[in-house]
Amino acid sequence: MSAYGGIEAGGSKWECAIGSSPHDLHATATIPTTTPEETIDQVVEFFGSNGSVDAIGIGSFGPLDADPTSRTWGHITSTPKPGWTFTDVGQAIRARLRVPVAFDTDVNAAALGEHRWGAAQGLGTFCYITVGTGIGGGVMAHGKLLHGLVHPEFGHMRIPHDLERDPFPGDCPYHGDCWEGLASGRAIEARWGRPASELEDRAEVWALQAHYLALGLVGVICVLSPERILIGGGVMRHSELLPLVHREVNELMNGYLATAAVGDEIGAYISAPVLGSRAGVLGAIALAETVAGGAVRE
Amino acid sequence: MSAYGGIEAGGSKWECAIGSSPHDLHATATIPTTTPEETIDQVVEFFGSNGSVDAIGIGSFGPLDADPTSRTWGHITSTPKPGWTFTDVGQAIRARLRVPVAFDTDVNAAALGEHRWGAAQGLGTFCYITVGTGIGGGVMAHGKLLHGLVHPEFGHMRIPHDLERDPFPGDCPYHGDCWEGLASGRAIEARWGRPASELEDRAEVWALQAHYLALGLVGVICVLSPERILIGGGVMRHSELLPLVHREVNELMNGYLATAAVGDEIGAYISAPVLGSRAGVLGAIALAETVAGGAVRE
Repeated sequence: MSAYGGIEAGGSKWECAIGSSPHDLHATATIPTTTPEETIDQVVEFFGSNGSVDAIGIGSFGPLDADPTSRTWGHITSTPKPGWTFTDVGQAIRARLRVPVAFDTDVNAAALGEHRWGAAQGLGTFCYITVGTGIGGGVMAHGKLLHGLVHPEFGHMRIPHDLERDPFPGDCPYHGDCWEGLASGRAIEARWGRPASELEDRAEVWALQAHYLALGLVGVICVLSPERILIGGGVMRHSELLPLVHREVNELMNGYLATAAVGDEIGAYISAPVLGSRAGVLGAIALAETVAGGAVRE
Repeated sequence: MSAYGGIEAGGSKWECAIGSSPHDLHATATIPTTTPEETIDQVVEFFGSNGSVDAIGIGSFGPLDADPTSRTWGHITSTPKPGWTFTDVGQAIRARLRVPVAFDTDVNAAALGEHRWGAAQGLGTFCYITVGTGIGGGVMAHGKLLHGLVHPEFGHMRIPHDLERDPFPGDCPYHGDCWEGLASGRAIEARWGRPASELEDRAEVWALQAHYLALGLVGVICVLSPERILIGGGVMRHSELLPLVHREVNELMNGYLATAAVGDEIGAYISAPVLGSRAGVLGAIALAETVAGGAVRE
């Protein structure tokens, strides 16, 4: 049986695992994100001491270079995260572990995982959105992960912002009040002075949050026309949020698309991913599958 | 040599042609859009009296049903255009002319035409946007036209709307101040009291227009990550508009994507289609090519 390595490279920790499916994950490790050198050293040590793998998949925070023909393939590029701007990850891991490496965004990896084993099986065109510290979106179109020019960056689209209702200016270092700048977990904490998890009983928090999420989802629906939208991440754990989002999306779309998906069946159309907290690392393992057997380029 | 029929079905007129490429268009007709019965009668008459075709492609205004497995394939669905709501077009033309018929949005057809013969040759993922009476967007992803749930409806995403700068409430009958409601030719005329063509020397018109177009384009870039954006339509004929849009998109993106395309090379990244006023009907002919040789289903 084949064994693949999966790495979910996040801004605060890297989740590593070895396995081949949700039912076969036989080694896992959580490595704190410190400097690139230190973090990658620990990743290499983990895989070096847990038996061989046929390939490694990396789903990383970004923006990043996922173009296999590019000289800077495998690099995290213009991230605002200190110490990580224009940092090689994929090439270093490939060179040190000498296995084929697949490198993509964390959300594209999660989308692939949901397509392989989760809530998007059989779909050709859909997206996976995470609303956590930031907001990200991964896209599959016609059964293949989408990169296009770079890769989708859902969090940075602009949405309407009513400054009378919400004077918070947004906290994206690049764009201020883009979608992520208004509706990420980080934005919620900056606006209300405490994290989302401590705001459970504040109805106005969730009404505003649902409104912003819906405005962005309308953009996603109008541009991409996904067959399904999977939306997860820490902020979505508030159980009343998703139903509020459903109602707002339907109100905003106002019956324009003649489809039950953006109507009576919106509960199925915009829904939670099913792989849960393992979506990222399982997606990375699914990524690894796609390059196993390939050459290890230097 | 094969001959295909192309129909660009618009809200005010239907352009019909027979041919196989931009260099071979040997019959054309312009039919005013009146009632569905009358309009389709004239289309059938045109094709019936100009020699046989192997297939017909229809690029139509929408929203519409382009799903070949659907019972209502070939129908225009929830259009606000009087008399045309939930109207069959594709099935009627197929039944009366007894040839394979391809049916898609006008903008998807135009995207296909630009991919076949124009400014998008060789690209896998790109979009074609028209800013005319309304705003529409067609998408190719991984070399195939994108439909997903229904089909893209770029014009109906929401964008920021500063009511102090622009008190015009927007004129989309479904959404008010969506992208189309603020930035279409119809919106320009409603806001300023005269059509765009009579506002050439009003700098404030084009500054606002460029701002709105750029806000929508940022959404398209963040969701779809197209390798190129082709943007045409009557409103884009104002020669100073596209350079203003380039500047605004770069300012809004603020260097977030580490790519020259959204930077120094934006003039090539967001550019005009090259098939001009024939993009629609040529796209429809390109659509026809895709179904030629297929069975004529009843």
